[in-house]
Amino acid sequence: MKLRQVGEDRLLDQLLRRLPFGKTVALGAGDDCALVAAPARRNFLVLKTDCIVEGIHFLPRASALDVGWKAMMRPLSDFAATSALPQFALVTLIASKETEVGWVRKCYHGLRKAAARFKVSIVGGETSSTPGPLSISVSVVGFVEKNRWASRRGGKVGDDLFVTGRLGGAIERKHLQFVPRIVESRWLTKNFSIHAMMDLSDGLGVDLPRLARASKVGFEIEIECLPFNRGVKIGNAIADGEDYELLFAISRRQSKRLERSWRKKFPRLLLTRIGSLIPQSAVRNSQLPGGYVHFQ
Amino acid sequence: MKLRQVGEDRLLDQLLRRLPFGKTVALGAGDDCALVAAPARRNFLVLKTDCIVEGIHFLPRASALDVGWKAMMRPLSDFAATSALPQFALVTLIASKETEVGWVRKCYHGLRKAAARFKVSIVGGETSSTPGPLSISVSVVGFVEKNRWASRRGGKVGDDLFVTGRLGGAIERKHLQFVPRIVESRWLTKNFSIHAMMDLSDGLGVDLPRLARASKVGFEIEIECLPFNRGVKIGNAIADGEDYELLFAISRRQSKRLERSWRKKFPRLLLTRIGSLIPQSAVRNSQLPGGYVHFQ
Repeated sequence: MKLRQVGEDRLLDQLLRRLPFGKTVALGAGDDCALVAAPARRNFLVLKTDCIVEGIHFLPRASALDVGWKAMMRPLSDFAATSALPQFALVTLIASKETEVGWVRKCYHGLRKAAARFKVSIVGGETSSTPGPLSISVSVVGFVEKNRWASRRGGKVGDDLFVTGRLGGAIERKHLQFVPRIVESRWLTKNFSIHAMMDLSDGLGVDLPRLARASKVGFEIEIECLPFNRGVKIGNAIADGEDYELLFAISRRQSKRLERSWRKKFPRLLLTRIGSLIPQSAVRNSQLPGGYVHFQ
Repeated sequence: MKLRQVGEDRLLDQLLRRLPFGKTVALGAGDDCALVAAPARRNFLVLKTDCIVEGIHFLPRASALDVGWKAMMRPLSDFAATSALPQFALVTLIASKETEVGWVRKCYHGLRKAAARFKVSIVGGETSSTPGPLSISVSVVGFVEKNRWASRRGGKVGDDLFVTGRLGGAIERKHLQFVPRIVESRWLTKNFSIHAMMDLSDGLGVDLPRLARASKVGFEIEIECLPFNRGVKIGNAIADGEDYELLFAISRRQSKRLERSWRKKFPRLLLTRIGSLIPQSAVRNSQLPGGYVHFQ
C-alpha cells in the first residue's frame, strides 16, 4: 500500500500508537504540542536538530530500518559531542505519495529502536508529502549539568587531541548503523576536564579545523598515529565523513591517566592521541585534505 | 550567486551571525548543540515541530520573506493552541544547490522577523542539499504553566464552541502572512477555564472532528453562524485550510462573560460562538465537508 492510499491522520495514528512514553511525558504525539517535564534548573536545556535526505545521506536502496536508525542517531551524536543526555525527540517525515507504507513503518521502527537505546521518548512529529526525495528531520531535547557540558570552544594551546574508534570508510556500512558515543562522553566529563569536544560527522579534515577555529588555536596532527579502519587508507581517515567518533582536547597533564582508565573502562574501543593544539601563529602544516561539505 | 558557490560553513556563518540571542541562551548556533536556560519546574516544557515544502505549502514564486515567516509561524500557532510561550527555535533548510543565496537570505530574514515578533531566539539549525523541492522544518521549544495548558482533549458535553477571526480563503494571501493567536490564547487561559483548544490548520471540517474525537464527544454546528472572509462562501469556511485561528470549547456558564470581555480586550478581532459539544450518541448532522488531508 502507498502513502496516498492512507490519510495523514490514519498514518500518524498507526505510527504514533506504538510510541513508548516515559513518565516525564504529560502529553505526547497526537496533540498540537507535546508537554514534558522540565529538567532541574541546575541544568541547561540542550537542543539539536538534524536531517537526512534520500540520495544525499542514504541511497534509495538502503534498508528502511537503517535509515530510521541513522536519522535518530545523528542528532544523538551531537548530544555525545556536548556530553548531554537526550530525552525527547520530534520526527518530521517528508515523503512522496508513492512511498510504500511498509517502508515508512520499518523506518519508524528504526527510529524507535534507536531512541530506545538511549531512553529517548518520541513525543511528536509531522508528515508532509513532497514530489521530491524522502527526507527525515529529527529534533532532540535533553539536558546537561551546567558544570559538565562540552563544546568546540575551550581548547587550549598545549592540549592533547584524542579520537575514539577508527576513522574512514564509514560510507561502506557504519554510517547507517553507528552508535553515538554518549556513554563514553558522559564518562569523560564525569572523570576528566574536557576542554573542547565534537563528533566527527564531516571528516577529520573538515571538523578538526572547526574545533581549532572555535577555540581560537591551531593544531598539529601526527598523521602516522591516525587510527583508520581496515580496508581504507590514511587519506580516508582524514577525508571521509560520517565517522561519528568523538574528537576532544584535554590537558596534557590528564592524558596518561585518561589512557589508563579508558583501557580499563572501554577495553573494546580504541582511544588514540592524534596530536595537539598549538598557537595559531605556529600553524605550519595543519592543513588537512577536506571532508564533505554540503552544497559544494 | 547559487548555494553551490558558497560552502555550507560559509552559508551558515553568514545566516547565523545575524541571529539575536536572548540572555537565556548560553551556547547558540554554530556548535554541535544549543544550550539554553531550563524553565522553572512548575512549568511544562513544550515541544513542537513543523515543516513546509515548496509546491505543497507555498508556490515557487512566493516571496522568500513570506516563506520564512510562514515556516516559523506555523509551529508558533501550535503554541497558541496549547496556550504556551515559545522561546527557542531550530531551523532546518533543505535546498537545491541551484537555489539563489539571496533567496535564502531573505527567507532567513522572514524567519528572524517572525521569531522576533514573539521574542523567540533561533539557536541552531541545519542545512542540507537536495535534488528536490525546497523545504524548511522549524522546531520550537518553550513552556507553559502546569495549570494553564490547553489541548484537544477535555471538551465537555454542553460546552460552547468558539472560533477567533474569520474562516476560509486563506490560500489567497493570509496563509503566508498570518499572526498566530498567542496573545489571545494566553489571555483566554489567564481569565477563563478553556476545556479544549486547537488551531485551525487543515480546515474546520477536518479539525473540529479531531477536537471532538480527542475529547470523546460529538459536536453540533450552527452553519449560519460561521464567520467567513469576504469573497469566500460558507463552504470555504468549512473546507479551506490554513486559517490559523483558534477553535476552543468553554463551559456555557462562562460564555457571556467571555464575549463581553473579549470585545473590550480585542475590539478588532471577531470572536464567534459557532456551536456546541454534544454526546457522541446524539451525533446526527455533525459531518462537515473535509478540509485538506496530506497524502490524499
